[in-house]
Amino acid sequence: MEMGLRSFTVYDMYKRNASIFKDRIAVQSERGKVTYRELLDQSHRVAGWLKGKGVKKGDRVAVLAKNDPYFFPLLGGLSAIGAIMVPINFRLSAEEVGHNLTNTEPVAIVVDPDYEKMVLELRSLCPSLREFITFGSGGGFYHSFEVLLKGEPASPILLDGDDPLVIMHTAAVQGKPRGAVISHHNLISCSIQNIALMGLTPEDAYLNILPLFHIAGMIGALIMMHVGGRNVMISKFDPRVAGKLIDQEKVTMIGDFPPILLQLLDEQAKGEFTLSSLKHIFGVDLQETVKRFEGLGYGQFWLAYGQTETMGLTSVCANRERPGCAGKPGPLVELKIVDEFDREVETGKVGEILVRGPLVFHGYWREEELTAYTFREGWHHTGDLGRLDEGG
Amino acid sequence: MEMGLRSFTVYDMYKRNASIFKDRIAVQSERGKVTYRELLDQSHRVAGWLKGKGVKKGDRVAVLAKNDPYFFPLLGGLSAIGAIMVPINFRLSAEEVGHNLTNTEPVAIVVDPDYEKMVLELRSLCPSLREFITFGSGGGFYHSFEVLLKGEPASPILLDGDDPLVIMHTAAVQGKPRGAVISHHNLISCSIQNIALMGLTPEDAYLNILPLFHIAGMIGALIMMHVGGRNVMISKFDPRVAGKLIDQEKVTMIGDFPPILLQLLDEQAKGEFTLSSLKHIFGVDLQETVKRFEGLGYGQFWLAYGQTETMGLTSVCANRERPGCAGKPGPLVELKIVDEFDREVETGKVGEILVRGPLVFHGYWREEELTAYTFREGWHHTGDLGRLDEGG
Repeated sequence: MEMGLRSFTVYDMYKRNASIFKDRIAVQSERGKVTYRELLDQSHRVAGWLKGKGVKKGDRVAVLAKNDPYFFPLLGGLSAIGAIMVPINFRLSAEEVGHNLTNTEPVAIVVDPDYEKMVLELRSLCPSLREFITFGSGGGFYHSFEVLLKGEPASPILLDGDDPLVIMHTAAVQGKPRGAVISHHNLISCSIQNIALMGLTPEDAYLNILPLFHIAGMIGALIMMHVGGRNVMISKFDPRVAGKLIDQEKVTMIGDFPPILLQLLDEQAKGEFTLSSLKHIFGVDLQETVKRFEGLGYGQFWLAYGQTETMGLTSVCANRERPGCAGKPGPLVELKIVDEFDREVETGKVGEILVRGPLVFHGYWREEELTAYTFREGWHHTGDLGRLDEGG
Repeated sequence: MEMGLRSFTVYDMYKRNASIFKDRIAVQSERGKVTYRELLDQSHRVAGWLKGKGVKKGDRVAVLAKNDPYFFPLLGGLSAIGAIMVPINFRLSAEEVGHNLTNTEPVAIVVDPDYEKMVLELRSLCPSLREFITFGSGGGFYHSFEVLLKGEPASPILLDGDDPLVIMHTAAVQGKPRGAVISHHNLISCSIQNIALMGLTPEDAYLNILPLFHIAGMIGALIMMHVGGRNVMISKFDPRVAGKLIDQEKVTMIGDFPPILLQLLDEQAKGEFTLSSLKHIFGVDLQETVKRFEGLGYGQFWLAYGQTETMGLTSVCANRERPGCAGKPGPLVELKIVDEFDREVETGKVGEILVRGPLVFHGYWREEELTAYTFREGWHHTGDLGRLDEGG
């Protein structure tokens, strides 16, 4: 069987969308509007520039930056050449960022101007780093990302759906960051599952409030890409600015962790904007806040359970259907609750949540023993406690 | 990596649905209503009975029957033990049915009363056949399917998403039937893609007018299963009976090949039923008929292109968006048009349609050369002609 025949990678999604959605807006921001056709072209150019610098399949490219529209051509370019993105939480200390770099040994790093200095100081820690790229204007050690966008377009290489595209670090255990290896197929499966669950269409638009280095933020953006809607960028969350943008750009979906929604609702109450276009909010919040949003009568809240290892939006449920629940296994998710001996417990009893299916990550980077332990008996052991009730 | 960790099989779908949708109706027919929980139990019993008769992973089980609600526990039972369903077109001649049997060498066959005699006469042709099962009352050579439903429940075996679940014969070439080998993952990918495209929910209901031995009929039924809606069965298509049933059971989706919709519309015009619940019709028909349906103002027509080898609903497009087009590549489909030298042709030019992605079948049963030829260059060569226009 030919490799790739039955794959559908994140690059394939960019390509399909360029063919179907053409001049529709894929990404919009203060930098302007980018159509799906332009986004594919930009991705080919980024791929070409990186290839020219010797970046090849399996090489890691780190990203340490606040949300930026250039995240999208970067992801597309890396997808095309089979390289792996290592998005780093910009709120980490320099020491922790250094850990993530030494753990993954990237050959290139992309930063925004705020982190140019920090990364240069970390250089000696991470001798694998050859290329320094900035979303800013560049100079010194740094190539401006604009230069990559002017690269000679490269053809994509053939990949398998199980090839890795992202290494995302989860909470450090004993000071040691664990990198979850995430494949093309993991991301695509999660995005299509949630398009199906929420019933999204190309008319939808997502405001990127959640950070793209986090699985929930990355999946939110990919869901909107995959369905052919608009990704609207905001440089920094400010409830008043975000609320006005939601009205102005007819944003239909956001992700939420406290206190995002509460702050938006408090601002909304002042009357400068309505939030009336918001049909979907996914995430986790207090019932009080969720009900306040639903009380506006505009949209619904999708309660979600997940972790980086299971693509974030693993188990999702409309709050209206079961207020306060932790979601229901999505249409591509198998989930069970077990006791300490891996025996399934009765409905209603608390135990460890086990997950199987295409949303399960491919293991911890360079942690074979830990990976084997996590995947024992053919299930991903989340380490999280939960219970199934009669509603699922 | 453990097998099954990242799989999601048709059996896994049955299991998830039993946990989430529990007492919601999965299948309804003249035989009564079956809930998702009952359907999983029935599937375990069918699996147990078959296992008891020595049916094992990879064994083929043929089906020669008109649409019957027992199709669903049969498919669930086969999924659980990794056996392969060979659905046979009941409109074929005895000789052609014989070809399909000798090609796949099933160990068991399931028929409805109309085909009991024909199959017994074909026995000598197919010595592999050990078990004869009927959807009728049984007797003589035949076990009634009711007996299988009373079997001792069996536990499922661990499968991979790429394991085959169906061999479906496509149009015979030079009198030789070609069996398309279809995996769990093929079917699941197609169902989730089309749930996402059409925006279906557990409130939807599908009337099985299309035959289940055909890929469009099988996928229509699976889409409705996967989303947690109701599969409504009808023994034989009669436009008046079907129309009344659509109104009575609030059916929201049907599949269509001429003359189904035309006949339904002609009957509807007589005023005995409205079709007002019908939100979605997928299939192929004359623009005149499609427009007449859309003119009622109740629902939309989804134009589809596909073949057995690509799970039927490969390329789908709302007629309203582009009247008369042959669909747009679905969210898990990559498609290109090439000339006789496999070179991609310009937009607007006619050429052969090539398909890649999780909807591509696993090859023709026992036809290695033909399979290799069909899959050359890492694409499935459909043999169909088409062109991409500016709309995709």
